[in-house]
Amino acid sequence: MTTATFAKGLEGIVASETEMSYIDGEQGVLEYVGISIGDLAKHSTFEETVFLLWNKRLPSKSELAHFEEELQKRYELPSGMEQRICSLPKTAEPMHVIRTMVSALAMHDPSPNDNDVESARAKALNILGYAPTIVAYFDRYRRGLELVHPDKSLTFSENFLYMLNGEKPTPAMAKAFDLCMITHADHGLNNSTFAARVIISTLSDVYSAITGAVGSLRGPLHGGANEGVMKMLNEIDSVADVENYVTQKLAKKDRIMGFGHRVYKAKDPRATDLQKLAKQLAEDTGKADLYAKSHKIEEIMEREVASKGIYPNVDFYSATTYHCIGLELDLFTPMFALSRIAGWSGHIIEQLSDNRLFRPKAQYVGPHDAPYTPMSER
Amino acid sequence: MTTATFAKGLEGIVASETEMSYIDGEQGVLEYVGISIGDLAKHSTFEETVFLLWNKRLPSKSELAHFEEELQKRYELPSGMEQRICSLPKTAEPMHVIRTMVSALAMHDPSPNDNDVESARAKALNILGYAPTIVAYFDRYRRGLELVHPDKSLTFSENFLYMLNGEKPTPAMAKAFDLCMITHADHGLNNSTFAARVIISTLSDVYSAITGAVGSLRGPLHGGANEGVMKMLNEIDSVADVENYVTQKLAKKDRIMGFGHRVYKAKDPRATDLQKLAKQLAEDTGKADLYAKSHKIEEIMEREVASKGIYPNVDFYSATTYHCIGLELDLFTPMFALSRIAGWSGHIIEQLSDNRLFRPKAQYVGPHDAPYTPMSER
Repeated sequence: MTTATFAKGLEGIVASETEMSYIDGEQGVLEYVGISIGDLAKHSTFEETVFLLWNKRLPSKSELAHFEEELQKRYELPSGMEQRICSLPKTAEPMHVIRTMVSALAMHDPSPNDNDVESARAKALNILGYAPTIVAYFDRYRRGLELVHPDKSLTFSENFLYMLNGEKPTPAMAKAFDLCMITHADHGLNNSTFAARVIISTLSDVYSAITGAVGSLRGPLHGGANEGVMKMLNEIDSVADVENYVTQKLAKKDRIMGFGHRVYKAKDPRATDLQKLAKQLAEDTGKADLYAKSHKIEEIMEREVASKGIYPNVDFYSATTYHCIGLELDLFTPMFALSRIAGWSGHIIEQLSDNRLFRPKAQYVGPHDAPYTPMSER
Repeated sequence: MTTATFAKGLEGIVASETEMSYIDGEQGVLEYVGISIGDLAKHSTFEETVFLLWNKRLPSKSELAHFEEELQKRYELPSGMEQRICSLPKTAEPMHVIRTMVSALAMHDPSPNDNDVESARAKALNILGYAPTIVAYFDRYRRGLELVHPDKSLTFSENFLYMLNGEKPTPAMAKAFDLCMITHADHGLNNSTFAARVIISTLSDVYSAITGAVGSLRGPLHGGANEGVMKMLNEIDSVADVENYVTQKLAKKDRIMGFGHRVYKAKDPRATDLQKLAKQLAEDTGKADLYAKSHKIEEIMEREVASKGIYPNVDFYSATTYHCIGLELDLFTPMFALSRIAGWSGHIIEQLSDNRLFRPKAQYVGPHDAPYTPMSER
C-alpha cells in the first residue's frame, strides 16, 4: 500500500524543471530566460521571443532573419488542409476547430513522429506557422467571406490580422496584438503546458502533445477565462454603472472576471504592459468608453479587494485589446492558443531533452475482493 | 522560492483518488471496482464491464439491456463524419486518425461542452460507440474496400470485427477480442488516463480530454509498445530459433518486447486470461506456430530473468490475439484505444465529480535578471 500523500491538483508538487519562464507570484515578476516581460514587451517581437524560448538565448540578426523566413514559409497550409477546414460545421467553436486541425496536420507531415530535438523544433514551427491560417480561414469561411491567403512579407501578427480582416492592420493594432502574443507565450507549468509535457513523455509526437494542450486551454478554468471579461464588460452599459455593478457582485460574493490568479498575489506583470497599449488602441478605434469601464473596474477592485491579493490578471486587458482589433468573442481563447504554442513547444523540447514518463499513482478508495454476482442474483 | 522536491515523472506521487481499478503490482492483482479481472474475463462482457466502471456496480438485466441499446444507437456515425474519414490521407497512421476524428466529433455534438456528470457519461458513450466505426471505416477506405456499415444487432466486439473484415467473426474470435477489450479497459493512473484527467480539470470537455489521451497512448513508452511484440515475433522464423534470438538479445542487454511493466513485479494478471484464448485462437486460425513462439519466449524469459521481476505484460498475448484476428500491425495500438475509452471516460467522470485544477509547479533552473541585449550588440 502506498503511504504517499494525495496531492490534489498536484498543488505544491514540482513536476518539471524549466529554463523558460521565471515567475515570482508574490512580487509580480515574470521573466523569459531571465529577461523581464517588461523589457521584452518594449523591445522584442513575438518571433524573437519564440526564438528565445526555444533556444534559451536571443538570436543574432541573421539567425532571427532565418527564423522569420522559415516561419513565413509555413503561413501557407499543406495541400488539402484548406478543403478540410472549409468542410467543418460552421457552428463549430473555434477551439474545437484548432484542436482538430492541429491534430490533422500530423497526417500531412511525412514523418510526424520524429522526436529528436531538431525534428521536434521543426514540427513546432509547422504548427506555429499553420495555426493562424487555420483560425483565419475558419473564421472567414464561417462568416461566408472569401478566404484571404497569407502574405509572406508580413510578420506573424500582421499576417494573421491581414488574413482575418482582409486588410493590413494599423501599426498600433499590430503592435498591441504582437504584445498579446509575447505576454501569453509561456507561463510555467500551467495546465495546458503540463498536459503537453505529460503527453510527449510517452514519446508520442509533437502534434499529439499540442493537440492535447489546445483541449486543456479551452476550459473555463484556464484559457477560456478571457471570454468572461468581455462578457462582463458587455453587461455594463457605461462607466457610470461600473460602481454599482462591481459592488453588487462583490456583495453577492460573485467573481469579477479578469481578477485574481492562482499564481500571482500582486498585479499580473503581463497586465501592466498590455494596459497601456489597450488604452491607446481603444482611443484609436473609438472605443475609449470600453477602456474607461475596464479602468474603473480596476480602481474599484483596488479599493475593495487589493488587500486580499486580488489584482487584474493578463485576461483583463487582453480582452479590451482583442475587442478593439475586431475579434469575435469566441476567438479570444484561440488567440491565447496561437501565442501559447510557443511555450507548449518549448516545454515539449525541454521534456524530450531529458524525458521521464509521467506515471503518478492513484489512491484506490473503492471496494476490495468483491464477488462477480451472477445476473440472476442482481 | 519553492522548497518542494522535484518528483521526476511524478513517481511516487498520488495525483488522484479512484474507485475503478485496484492494482497490486507485487502480487499481480488487478480488480475493477473490487471484482478480479479473472472473474470478469470468465463471466462478463465488455459492455457490462464499461457499465461497472462508469457506475461502480454491476447492472441489473434491464439496465444492461438499456446500456447496450444506447451504445448500439451510436455505432452509426453522425452525418458528415464518413466523408471526413474518407478524405484523409490514406497513408495516415490510424492513431493520428482516431485522435483527429474523436476531436472532430465535438463539432457534431450540439452541446459538446456540457460537463455535468450525466452529460459527460452521454458524451463518453458517443465516443465509445463511434470510435470502432471510425477505425473500421478508415481501415477499409485505405485498403480500397467498400465500407461495411454497422450492424446494431451485434455486440461492440462482434460489430467492430464485422465492420473491419466484412464478415461476422467466429465466436472464438469475438470472445478473444472482447477479452482484450475487458482487460485493457482501465489501469489506474497510466499516462493517457492521467492526461485525460489533467485536461478535463480545466472543465474543458470530454472530447478534448479523450483526444489528448489518444495522443498520449500512441507513444512507444505507452500503448505503442504492443506493436513491438508482433514485430519481434515476425523477426523469429520458427520455434527452433527462439532460444538463440532471446539469449542473444539478453546478452546484448536489448529489451525483449512484451516483458516487464513499471507497475507489475509479478506476471501481469491481464496476461493470464489472454494467454488461454490466444492459444485457442492461434490453433483455430492455423497460427499455432505463432503461439508456440510466444510461449517459448515466455519459458526462456522465466528461466533467465523472472528472478528480476520481469514477466510478460498484457501486450505479450494481445499481440498474438490481434494478429490471429487479422488486424494490421498499425491497428494494435488503436485496439488499446477502443478499450481504454472506457477507463478514460470513467476517470473523467470521477474527476468532474470532485474536480480540482491540476496545476503543479515547475522548478526554474535558468538565468535571472538578464538584460535585453540590443540587436547591434549581439
